Amino acid sequence: MIIQKSDNPRIGSFDPENYSFGDHFIDHMIICEYENGQWGEPKLMPYGPLPFSPANMAFNYGQACFEGMKAYKDKNGDVFLFRPEKNFERINKSATRLAMPEVPEEAFMQGLKVLIDADRDWVPHGEGKSLYIRPLIFATEEALKARISTKYMFAIVASPAKSYYSAPVSVKISDYYSRASSGGVGFAKAAGNYAASFYPTKLANEEGYEQIIWTDDATHENFEESGTMNVFVRINDTIYTPATSDKILDGVTRDSFIQLAKKRGIEVVVGDVKVKDVIAAHERGELKEVWGVGTAVVTSVFEAIGYKDKKYDLPKLSAEESYALTLQRDLVAIQTNNAEDPFGWRVLVEKNILETV
Amino acid sequence: MIIQKSDNPRIGSFDPENYSFGDHFIDHMIICEYENGQWGEPKLMPYGPLPFSPANMAFNYGQACFEGMKAYKDKNGDVFLFRPEKNFERINKSATRLAMPEVPEEAFMQGLKVLIDADRDWVPHGEGKSLYIRPLIFATEEALKARISTKYMFAIVASPAKSYYSAPVSVKISDYYSRASSGGVGFAKAAGNYAASFYPTKLANEEGYEQIIWTDDATHENFEESGTMNVFVRINDTIYTPATSDKILDGVTRDSFIQLAKKRGIEVVVGDVKVKDVIAAHERGELKEVWGVGTAVVTSVFEAIGYKDKKYDLPKLSAEESYALTLQRDLVAIQTNNAEDPFGWRVLVEKNILETV
Repeated sequence: MIIQKSDNPRIGSFDPENYSFGDHFIDHMIICEYENGQWGEPKLMPYGPLPFSPANMAFNYGQACFEGMKAYKDKNGDVFLFRPEKNFERINKSATRLAMPEVPEEAFMQGLKVLIDADRDWVPHGEGKSLYIRPLIFATEEALKARISTKYMFAIVASPAKSYYSAPVSVKISDYYSRASSGGVGFAKAAGNYAASFYPTKLANEEGYEQIIWTDDATHENFEESGTMNVFVRINDTIYTPATSDKILDGVTRDSFIQLAKKRGIEVVVGDVKVKDVIAAHERGELKEVWGVGTAVVTSVFEAIGYKDKKYDLPKLSAEESYALTLQRDLVAIQTNNAEDPFGWRVLVEKNILETV
Repeated sequence: MIIQKSDNPRIGSFDPENYSFGDHFIDHMIICEYENGQWGEPKLMPYGPLPFSPANMAFNYGQACFEGMKAYKDKNGDVFLFRPEKNFERINKSATRLAMPEVPEEAFMQGLKVLIDADRDWVPHGEGKSLYIRPLIFATEEALKARISTKYMFAIVASPAKSYYSAPVSVKISDYYSRASSGGVGFAKAAGNYAASFYPTKLANEEGYEQIIWTDDATHENFEESGTMNVFVRINDTIYTPATSDKILDGVTRDSFIQLAKKRGIEVVVGDVKVKDVIAAHERGELKEVWGVGTAVVTSVFEAIGYKDKKYDLPKLSAEESYALTLQRDLVAIQTNNAEDPFGWRVLVEKNILETV
């Protein structure tokens, strides 16, 4: 790995008690470039802009995918990643579906560890705080040809993240717009999937909803995802979540919630979640909770769901009654090294890795 | 408009008899930036790279759309655009669906004319030659937040294009993969649509097909598009093409072909084109032609179509018998000022526009 440390680190001006998420970046980034059919040597370098023409193929033909993951600092100052091998597997599934080359394990896993170790002072400690990490791959060939690019960049950038807390939101069940097609790229963290979701979300915002529950594009009868998260429904004391497919992201938080629920003896049913069954359960008073899960906020609790012209309020459960919040606590405790990790999910970021690469 | 001419033009090294399409760029480009809720002043500047971080939102969330259009030089050296107002309307439809701001008419239309006038020596003259022009809009905010970007760039870049001629190709009717969902972004020239199509196309290539005929994702019973083009089918002496929808691009070449066919008295039916009807017509010997249309090659003639495990050869028609090639000739004659233009499609690029802006 090529190491080029920043001559002008900004860490001195970073206030871990006062920052906003997503637009402040740590001092370094990882870059690895692909051309002539192979990946070059990964490089740690100062975070910042690189030269790209407007004819860059990523801007024109959208070959781009990413991962979202976090690093957590415990009370001893040790830094941990959470199930990074899942993100490594998934970025390459996304890459394959977008006809991009798979990124090598060394660039991804060692890149992560070298970057986080070099900038470990940027990982905030405290309730809900973490370092949000963004690995991504995008096309970099400069050509106006609608075909597979011959050049790519793999990059890892990161930004300190704030509290998990997010206020309960109202979500609208989509009966017109969709985010994925059968035989499409919905399961991939493809850049274009996000762009496609913004306009329908804006329309839902204008109707007073924060997010959309996406349904299948053919019938709009089945739940798929919620916003940019996987979705869970609790009817009585059973949790339901859609099975992964070529339309549904195989979320790391989703998988962790399923395992944590089973560990607690909560029944989890993975399969079709039908809009009519959810509405019927509400009418019987059996719909207890609906929530989204994802890396960014872990859990987004829904206080109401809209369908057609009706808004269905959900019960307000205490933090103890709520499966969503209980499983969130279980997950965060493992992520932040405040609980045993029977699953082997935590990965320690060793110190002074730089000296060994 | 801000004018910043190149100090180091490359036109002297451009050989209009010997170049390849899509990776040589004219000396200038148009750039216009959007922030704080408004577009800035358009700028003509030397073509080249600009600084973008890997945290640029276009790379991460895919807000990016484009247009494809051409400028043609006639035998007197005059340069014409073809129906540029259609591209202007469409880029803003695409932008709206991707929650991006509409580009102002001045930046788009005057930008085009100023750029083409400044670099008119780059417009090649001769059989099939043209300047391919690529207007595009993409997000430029530097932030790891999956939401609508607050900053954008509109750019126009261009590359000399070669002969229209493309060998007849074999295409495969998709029975699994899809390019668009109902309620999705298939009608937009969204960057992500192209990325999503590359992998299925690669699989079709490995089966011996050059392109895919995309079908609806729910049933795969209806034709949608072919490759990155609109598709036409001729059964006996009637032409069929799918109606535009939220899944099908409203192509300028498609619309022009329909109008040119009607002018010749050829019957055109716009509506569902069912796979089973096309295959049945082939079995009756009535399937005369299937072809794709788009700005890049105008017409791509299909010599065979594959469906399930069978390959159906299409008749080899002469240039006179073929509706595809006849309509292509009609269109190119108008585009290149070799025929009357009863539709008012040609737009002259006036000389010395720079002095007036």
